[in-house]
Amino acid sequence: LTGHAWLVGAGPGDPGLLTLAARDALQQADVVLYDALIGPEVLSFARPGAELVPVGKRAGAHSMPQEEINRLLVARTAEGRRVVRLKGGDPFVFGRGGEEALALRAAGLPFTVIPGVTSAVAVPAAAGIPVTHRGLATRFTVITAADRAGEVPADLPGPAAAGTLVILMGAAALPALVERLLAAGWDPDTPAASIASGTLPGQQVVTAPLAGIAPAAAALPTPLITVVGPVATLAEQLGPGRYGP
Amino acid sequence: LTGHAWLVGAGPGDPGLLTLAARDALQQADVVLYDALIGPEVLSFARPGAELVPVGKRAGAHSMPQEEINRLLVARTAEGRRVVRLKGGDPFVFGRGGEEALALRAAGLPFTVIPGVTSAVAVPAAAGIPVTHRGLATRFTVITAADRAGEVPADLPGPAAAGTLVILMGAAALPALVERLLAAGWDPDTPAASIASGTLPGQQVVTAPLAGIAPAAAALPTPLITVVGPVATLAEQLGPGRYGP
Repeated sequence: LTGHAWLVGAGPGDPGLLTLAARDALQQADVVLYDALIGPEVLSFARPGAELVPVGKRAGAHSMPQEEINRLLVARTAEGRRVVRLKGGDPFVFGRGGEEALALRAAGLPFTVIPGVTSAVAVPAAAGIPVTHRGLATRFTVITAADRAGEVPADLPGPAAAGTLVILMGAAALPALVERLLAAGWDPDTPAASIASGTLPGQQVVTAPLAGIAPAAAALPTPLITVVGPVATLAEQLGPGRYGP
Repeated sequence: LTGHAWLVGAGPGDPGLLTLAARDALQQADVVLYDALIGPEVLSFARPGAELVPVGKRAGAHSMPQEEINRLLVARTAEGRRVVRLKGGDPFVFGRGGEEALALRAAGLPFTVIPGVTSAVAVPAAAGIPVTHRGLATRFTVITAADRAGEVPADLPGPAAAGTLVILMGAAALPALVERLLAAGWDPDTPAASIASGTLPGQQVVTAPLAGIAPAAAALPTPLITVVGPVATLAEQLGPGRYGP
């Protein structure tokens, strides 16, 4: 019995943004533990007969607690199975992949991390927004709109310190976060864009000045990705429809 | 004549971290304009007979000015060729992809952006360092150690504002940047790691407290990626050798 686990990033949604290594891992897996946001086209790379187990992580819906995911991942691998833990975006960008890796490590089980295309960069790109751009942004910062307890984060960087600010998983918490950004020195007229279903056929983009982005984004489905900074103005020239495959 | 350009991220180096869409774009390209850091295994996806044009971007070496790359990209596409502009990491993370997209747009030429696995996340991962991790970092910031004029960036965020700090393309400028981080409130004992040839067989990792990371990294080949923050301590438990494909 030589089990092995792969912690795999599936990218932002478009199946073309799966990596070759992720595809290979899926094709040889006995078990696939996948987040709810993973689409059927990505899952179709798994071989017939593989055990496909949804483990949640859709915002607002019932999902398996992280401790239970860790337990299942360790148990299936310890049984000698080839287990793929398939996660949206990258496993180490708010994906709790580090916790799963530590659980496997503590159990003495071999594992491999396969990074993915992070939604934090690719979803803005799909809306025509480069997170860095000469003359507009020479750095970027990635935060979540609320932590796991629902709290809006403190110690927010101002615009010079942050560069482009990319906000993941915000929707309910976006109004409170915007208030806090304005208090941290962000200009209310800073260009901003919110993107739902980024890289997928149903992608929706709204743009507004920072002070108005939360109401503008309120009607979009979740999860959202919001980009704040001068680069958001490029959405008009570079997107949408200029993103592929 | 219906030319088309693809601005494609090749990922951090490991050919397995190429996306399916990037592979498909390469396989049908007439012309590939590639950065010097792109490896032969990645380039081997191009079809026999494709025109492969190195356009530089290796630190310290002679390389084609950006304006000339833009001109070549536009000219080849305007001739009706299928042109892939292949860039390390992601095209919009310090890749100047936005400038190339605007040049194509100004010329009225169709183009497609294919995001890639960014080195800013995947190279730390390959060293066993998740950029976010429960209890250690709930955000991350990506900067360069020096701008294109060689200047160390100002307005650096402190540790609470930045979360994990990922520093790209630093080597010569790292000592001055570390000084400036200490002045911005970073603890000299903050864990840090520098990684050369991340995700490749020749990968090298050094770890040290922030105050000592520049001398520790001085012997590594460039370009470097340096990670600063409590997550860097995970390198000991989660890497190396636990990264795949």
